[in-house]
Amino acid sequence: MASKQHITLPAGFTAAGVRCGVKQADTEDLAVIACDRDASAAVVLTTNQVVGAPVLWCRQMLPDGRGKARGMVINAGCSNVCTGKAGLKDARAMAARTAKGIGAETEQILVASTGVIGQRLPMDKIRAGIDDACASLDTDKDAAVARAILTTDLQPKSAVEQVTVGGKQATVAGICKGSGMIAPSLATMIGVITTDVAITPAALHKALVSAADETFNAVTVDTDTSTSDTVAVLASGAAGNKPLTARSKDFLAFVRALREVCKSLAWQIAADGEGATRVIEVRVRNARSRDEAKIAAKSVADSPLVKTAAHGCDPNWGRIVMALGKSAARVDPDRLGVKLAGVTVFSRGMGRRFDPDELTRKMTTDVLTIECDLGVGTGEYTALTCDLTREYIAINADYHT
Amino acid sequence: MASKQHITLPAGFTAAGVRCGVKQADTEDLAVIACDRDASAAVVLTTNQVVGAPVLWCRQMLPDGRGKARGMVINAGCSNVCTGKAGLKDARAMAARTAKGIGAETEQILVASTGVIGQRLPMDKIRAGIDDACASLDTDKDAAVARAILTTDLQPKSAVEQVTVGGKQATVAGICKGSGMIAPSLATMIGVITTDVAITPAALHKALVSAADETFNAVTVDTDTSTSDTVAVLASGAAGNKPLTARSKDFLAFVRALREVCKSLAWQIAADGEGATRVIEVRVRNARSRDEAKIAAKSVADSPLVKTAAHGCDPNWGRIVMALGKSAARVDPDRLGVKLAGVTVFSRGMGRRFDPDELTRKMTTDVLTIECDLGVGTGEYTALTCDLTREYIAINADYHT
Repeated sequence: MASKQHITLPAGFTAAGVRCGVKQADTEDLAVIACDRDASAAVVLTTNQVVGAPVLWCRQMLPDGRGKARGMVINAGCSNVCTGKAGLKDARAMAARTAKGIGAETEQILVASTGVIGQRLPMDKIRAGIDDACASLDTDKDAAVARAILTTDLQPKSAVEQVTVGGKQATVAGICKGSGMIAPSLATMIGVITTDVAITPAALHKALVSAADETFNAVTVDTDTSTSDTVAVLASGAAGNKPLTARSKDFLAFVRALREVCKSLAWQIAADGEGATRVIEVRVRNARSRDEAKIAAKSVADSPLVKTAAHGCDPNWGRIVMALGKSAARVDPDRLGVKLAGVTVFSRGMGRRFDPDELTRKMTTDVLTIECDLGVGTGEYTALTCDLTREYIAINADYHT
Repeated sequence: MASKQHITLPAGFTAAGVRCGVKQADTEDLAVIACDRDASAAVVLTTNQVVGAPVLWCRQMLPDGRGKARGMVINAGCSNVCTGKAGLKDARAMAARTAKGIGAETEQILVASTGVIGQRLPMDKIRAGIDDACASLDTDKDAAVARAILTTDLQPKSAVEQVTVGGKQATVAGICKGSGMIAPSLATMIGVITTDVAITPAALHKALVSAADETFNAVTVDTDTSTSDTVAVLASGAAGNKPLTARSKDFLAFVRALREVCKSLAWQIAADGEGATRVIEVRVRNARSRDEAKIAAKSVADSPLVKTAAHGCDPNWGRIVMALGKSAARVDPDRLGVKLAGVTVFSRGMGRRFDPDELTRKMTTDVLTIECDLGVGTGEYTALTCDLTREYIAINADYHT
């Protein structure tokens, strides 16, 4: 889990991040990532019923979430959501302009936009930005690319893993944005992952869906699922391995590498959630099923009372028990065990003795772990969130759109 | 919707609120409400799987949520939740002591407690308080009774309605507490409603369930369902009407009166939500069903991004559309219409033109209305919440349990 930016580290990719002026702040706000050949491509998109024009474009281009692509264009500052037919035309125009710039077809370019809802893109600025980016594509601009896709994020987010497939060394690299309206199911979270592994689109999609469910989908900043969530992975095949399928010996090695990249990005999203001062990791085990473990973990991670107690380092385990009990997952108080920062605070229907001052000190940490043993099965899931702070209110109440 | 306290206005009831010292603050913290005859009784209890001992006692006493009762005892400051068998014994002891004080049977006294989770009740104080209260039962202490059940509520909450049943004038009166606690924990709601209407337990339960679903169940302060929520209604029959059944001509008149009382109390809870500066009323209509209307309304009312925008008077309709779209209710953006403070902001898939400064001024109000027309059916539901503010964070993060 490295912290540098390296979206072009996998062979076959170039990228550029430029400032085109959609965002008012003086920062990059448009990125192009290009592959020098037809890459296998897979996407997972928001489950919100209201979706942005770029999501519609990606669906149209990759109807089953997989296929081939030559690149992706992303802008921040305006999400092109609720913009009608004109918005869909704008998304397509972004793909067309990028395709022209890198010598590909319009239907080979994925599009993602993040930012305010309900406004048309300033297409003059976007077109100029795409031209700028395509003219400067290279492998030395990864930091600018990672910055260009951010909105209220304080930190650029990236991760990289090495993997050996079919005897060849290969790389999986990713960048993403997070921060607000994050309950990726999928969440505006936008992520791009590149790899030089050779892999079929079907296997790539299977790997992405599997990796996303335990990583991006485990993050909840504020329960709110964006209309623009998009994670795309592009596999150039430049590593030269025999193309992986879901039955290949090394497919699981690739899935593990992909999952590590996604997991690192997911943790970075939680840590940089709007107003966050600490990450909260909610580990649920021994639920009736994995689905119920997920429901229970999300119920705790979504609870504003748990999140405010975590902010105040208050060992208020009653709120954790409440959040488990209100969920649709089966909970039997007499079998339930809860640990807070490693300390057993609840078991067999009762609170346990602990030193509250000492536990408060243990809770004063960058990562607060809450472990819940439901004792009714074998299902496991870990959800990630951040604490709920005054700064979240300030970010979302004080500054008008 | 009157604002004075009148829990003993219906004939047949007396009550008292006393200070017994469970709460540190110098205020009443224990109430007894007694009926001079066997009253028809109905309760609705929390749906949380982790429940307090008083909830278990009420379930045991009224297995189907209905039956007969002679009164109720309520304390604030300690919720008697997660206290094991000893806690259940304490709840029963509260019923027994109250029964002795008013000349009834232990199994005729409902019990409710609100406050911190995981601590035993100080039974010496509780017993003394019950004796005090039973010795001073009267019809002139309604204000003290309404105060005695509060935790961090800023205002006592009560309502009263008149209704004619079977040619007799009768009264329905209620009190409740809303969200917050001295040592902040759960948003427990506890409500008691008295009436002198004669009505069978079965009809009373049916009326309560129906009234609660559109009133108390429509309120969401912070999505967190308490382990102690309890609403009880006691009907003395002192009005002298022929006992109502669910088939009586005037049953609906009674349900309407009961619903008005519950509705008034629900609005008072939303207005006094932790940190609240305004009520948000989310009206959904033309959903595929009433259930879907409820899911959609709750999704908007639970969204922290909608609640912070409401706090900041930011006409950010994209967040409302997002919250509708992420819900399990069917939403078609092209049929969806959204009004904010009476102004159409979204229709036919697109944002509509409006003057943002003027709309911000309209949003600066005690009650902000959000109207969502889903356009796919005839289901309706209205949810109530309050804005999300720094004060909510302060109440729930800064002061330790």
